[in-house]
Amino acid sequence: MMQLKVIGVGAGDPDHVTMQAVKALTAVDVFFVLDKGEVKQELVDLREEILRRHAGDREYRVVFGRDPERDRGSDAYVESVDDWRRRRADVCADLIAKELEDGQTGAFLVWGDPSLYDSTLAILDDILARGELTFEIEVIPGISSVSALAARHRVGLNQVGKPIEITTGRRLAKSWPDDVADVVVMLDAQTAFSRHTDQDADIYWGAYLGTPDEILIAGPLSEVSEQIVEARAEARRRKGWIMDTYLLRRRSK
Amino acid sequence: MMQLKVIGVGAGDPDHVTMQAVKALTAVDVFFVLDKGEVKQELVDLREEILRRHAGDREYRVVFGRDPERDRGSDAYVESVDDWRRRRADVCADLIAKELEDGQTGAFLVWGDPSLYDSTLAILDDILARGELTFEIEVIPGISSVSALAARHRVGLNQVGKPIEITTGRRLAKSWPDDVADVVVMLDAQTAFSRHTDQDADIYWGAYLGTPDEILIAGPLSEVSEQIVEARAEARRRKGWIMDTYLLRRRSK
Ligand SMILES: C[S@@+](CC[C@H](N)C(=O)[O-])C[C@H]1O[C@@H](n2cnc3c(N)ncnc32)[C@H](O)[C@@H]1O
Ligand SMILES: C[S@@+](CC[C@H](N)C(=O)[O-])C[C@H]1O[C@@H](n2cnc3c(N)ncnc32)[C@H](O)[C@@H]1O
Repeated sequence: MMQLKVIGVGAGDPDHVTMQAVKALTAVDVFFVLDKGEVKQELVDLREEILRRHAGDREYRVVFGRDPERDRGSDAYVESVDDWRRRRADVCADLIAKELEDGQTGAFLVWGDPSLYDSTLAILDDILARGELTFEIEVIPGISSVSALAARHRVGLNQVGKPIEITTGRRLAKSWPDDVADVVVMLDAQTAFSRHTDQDADIYWGAYLGTPDEILIAGPLSEVSEQIVEARAEARRRKGWIMDTYLLRRRSK
Repeated sequence: MMQLKVIGVGAGDPDHVTMQAVKALTAVDVFFVLDKGEVKQELVDLREEILRRHAGDREYRVVFGRDPERDRGSDAYVESVDDWRRRRADVCADLIAKELEDGQTGAFLVWGDPSLYDSTLAILDDILARGELTFEIEVIPGISSVSALAARHRVGLNQVGKPIEITTGRRLAKSWPDDVADVVVMLDAQTAFSRHTDQDADIYWGAYLGTPDEILIAGPLSEVSEQIVEARAEARRRKGWIMDTYLLRRRSK
C-alpha cells in the first residue's frame, strides 16, 4: 500500500509548523509539488525552508508537476474550478503512479490548514474514485490564515455564543451574509469589503500574514476602507502578488 | 512592562503544538491556570505533558486560580457569560498583579485556537480597560478542534467557492442557519444535530479528538444520528465528560 500525507504547514511563518507535521515530514519519501507558471518565489522559499529545517537530514525526493492553468475568465466559477481540479487530478495521478512505489510515503504540503479552501483532498478523492490507484490518506491539520489573522490582531473570531461565517470575496461582493455579525473573508481579489462601508462594522485586515512583509490594518470599516484599498494596491504593485484576509465584525446594537 | 502570552496548544494531541508555541513556552516565567471545581484529569495531564515536553528544562512557576462558577441555569445566556467573564477577569487580575513582576512574561495556555469560543482574550482586554494593570499581549495561534475534526475525517470544511458557518449547539437547536450548506457545530450539550434528520445532509462527528479516546462517526445524518446520540451518551457515562464537535454538510442539489 502507498501512503499519502496531506500536511498543513501553516500560513506563512515557518514556525507555524506543528510537532505532528514535523514527525510526518521526516517520514516522507517523496514530496509532490505542483507549481504554477508564474511562481511566487517567496512561497517556494518558504516550502524549501520548511523541508530544510524539518524534513530531516536524510534522503528524500521532491518531484514537481506543472499545475494546469485555470480558466479565470469564465463566469461559471464552480464549473471552471471543477474542471481545473480534474486536470490537476490527472497531473497528480501521473506523478504518484510514476514516482511512488508500494510501501512508500508521499506527501503534499498544503498552505495553512488543508480543510480551508484547498483542493488537495478533493483531488486525491477524485483519483481514488477513478479506481486505478489505491493509497491511504493521512491529513495533518495546520494553522490557517484565519487563525493567524485573529492571533496577529489579538481578537476572537466570534462574539459570545454567536456564529461566524467564513466566505469568499466573490460572495461578500454580492451581499453581507444573513444573520451573522462576524464574517471572515478569504480569496478576495476585489476588495469586497469596500462595498459595505455603510455597515456599522469594524474590519481586521491582514496581508502576507506570518511573513516579513506582513501588513495589519484595523478600525471602523467606513474609516479605514480606503486606507486598506490603497495599502493593498501599493503592496501588490511592489511585490507582484498579494495574499490577504480579513474579519468583518458588525457592532451589536 | 509585563508580557502576557496567550498560547494555543491544540485540541487534544500534544503534537498539535507548533514550533512557535514551543518557542513561546520556553520564554515564560509564570503559567496561569484557572481550574474548575471538578477538574477533568485528562486535560490537566495534557497541560502538564505539554509543559514537561516543551517548556524547557529550567525554572518556571505554575500558579492556579479558582475558576468562578458559571450560572448555567440562567436563560440569559449572553448575560450570564458576560458576568462569568467579569468574575474570571477579577481572578486573573489578582493573579497577574500578585505573581508577575515587571519585565516578566506570563502565559495562559488555551485549548485549541485562542480565536474560537475562548474567553481569554476578552478577559485580558477587560483587565486592561480597567486601567489598573498594563501589559503587552501576544497571541500564538493553535490547531482548533475544527481543523482537527476535518483532518481526522479527511474532508474539507467548504464546498468549492461556498461559505462555512461555525456555530453553537444552542443556535443549531433553533434552526439550520440561512444560506449555508456547511455548518460546523461546537459547544453542543444537547445533540442538536438530531433535530435536523429531515435534511439531506451528511454529518462528520468527532469526540475527544486527538486523544487516545477519540471517536469518529460519519455518514448520512438521518442514518447515523441515533448511533451518534448513543455513542455520545455511552462515552459520557464512561468518562464523566465529553468534548465533541461536528460538520454538517447539506448535499447540493
Ligand atoms: C486557496 S486559499 C487557501 C487557504 C489556506 N488553506 C489556509 O488555511 O489559510 C488562499 C487564501 O487564503 C488567504 N491566505 C492564505 N495565506 C495567507 C496569508 N499568509 N496572509 C493573508 N491571507 C492568507 C487569502 O485569503 C488567500 O486568498
Ligand atoms: C470553549 S470551546 C473552545 C474551542 C477551542 N478554542 C478550539 O479552538 O477548539 C469548547 C468546544 O470545542 C470543541 N472541542 C474542543 N476540543 C475538542 C476535542 N478534542 N474534540 C472534540 N471537540 C472539541 C467542543 O465542541 C467543545 O464544546
